[in-house]
Amino acid sequence: MSIANGIPDIVIGRLPVYLRALTNLAQSGKTNTSSHELGRRLGISSAQIRKDLSHFGEFGKQGTGYNINYLLEQLRAILNLEQEWRVAIIGAGYLGHALAHYQGFSSRGFRMAWVFDIDHEMVGKKMNGLSVQHIDQLKETAKQENIQMALLAVPTTAAQAVTDLLVDAGIKAILNYAPINVEVPADVEVRYSDPVVQMQHMTYYLKPELEVLATLSRD
Amino acid sequence: MSIANGIPDIVIGRLPVYLRALTNLAQSGKTNTSSHELGRRLGISSAQIRKDLSHFGEFGKQGTGYNINYLLEQLRAILNLEQEWRVAIIGAGYLGHALAHYQGFSSRGFRMAWVFDIDHEMVGKKMNGLSVQHIDQLKETAKQENIQMALLAVPTTAAQAVTDLLVDAGIKAILNYAPINVEVPADVEVRYSDPVVQMQHMTYYLKPELEVLATLSRD
Repeated sequence: MSIANGIPDIVIGRLPVYLRALTNLAQSGKTNTSSHELGRRLGISSAQIRKDLSHFGEFGKQGTGYNINYLLEQLRAILNLEQEWRVAIIGAGYLGHALAHYQGFSSRGFRMAWVFDIDHEMVGKKMNGLSVQHIDQLKETAKQENIQMALLAVPTTAAQAVTDLLVDAGIKAILNYAPINVEVPADVEVRYSDPVVQMQHMTYYLKPELEVLATLSRD
Repeated sequence: MSIANGIPDIVIGRLPVYLRALTNLAQSGKTNTSSHELGRRLGISSAQIRKDLSHFGEFGKQGTGYNINYLLEQLRAILNLEQEWRVAIIGAGYLGHALAHYQGFSSRGFRMAWVFDIDHEMVGKKMNGLSVQHIDQLKETAKQENIQMALLAVPTTAAQAVTDLLVDAGIKAILNYAPINVEVPADVEVRYSDPVVQMQHMTYYLKPELEVLATLSRD
């Protein structure tokens, strides 16, 4: 699924970032912006932004830039955010707890109202008002409540087995927090959230300590 | 910083994913692998993997594939992971708590031994054995302990102000969990972790509910 309708996945991946920046601009009272302003805020070139958006149509006018509300509306439509998506948290540990308390879901298109765990002792406990259900209930609840997405916050060793349960329950998109790649059928989307992967990406650009020490000793 | 030494940032971003998959393969007792096996595990084409690695040298042999330990060693060197990087958690809320309990840092090159918060009432409290310090202590502690990276787990409204403190304290890489873009000098790396951005990326590929309902009513 790296290319859909000929549009590279990396372009799709930047649209939610544009959506977020435009939402922040709108909240600060702005009604218009430009690819230059957006680019400056995001550390992306204005040419890249114009090229990304041009895949989907003509959203701005030469000289006057973008109407923020119109562009927000278009981006929401492109990303299928005109409906509310229902999302389950899988795993009632520290991370599940943090996700259950995260404030940013409902205003951005997601209803997060279900938490599942495999541990019977967790069942019935409350996480930010949400009652933990046993994972055995997932399939029935997902069907009843039309839950299509899941945040997978379980230990690495359980990630594949629980992913299989999610797939069986009809979940179509999984954000996996366990640092392991899981296998899913072709019609199920998986993305990964791993702080270490992101930190290792950054250390590439950092000056190693040995160099720092060498530099200091030359002073 | 999207291109360093002519190597696209997106290629750099895949190296930690390869590193993770290779580590999992090694832990399962394997000593050799191929771009095909890696690609199958990661949902990336084998050609892409070979092309990515070719930026850095010749790591495999036609026919015999890659020696896993050798490739792991090379990737760690490329990503500056031959040293341990010291990382502070900023924000002792639910997310900071989850990060302090995350098991995967130390085995993958990061020492996570400091937590800071702006709330004086949090100071001295323990999070997984780590004592919360006041953010006023950050600059001194960062210098003493050679902390160069931070996980920013503070509310959106505080993110830029706290980022400025991090930069002033000499932090060179920030993983920002607040859903807002922050401004930093050119020599500071910032990456973002926002579950909503990742979920909105996935909804692009999902079938909207209205279509699902329409499909159902046609049955």
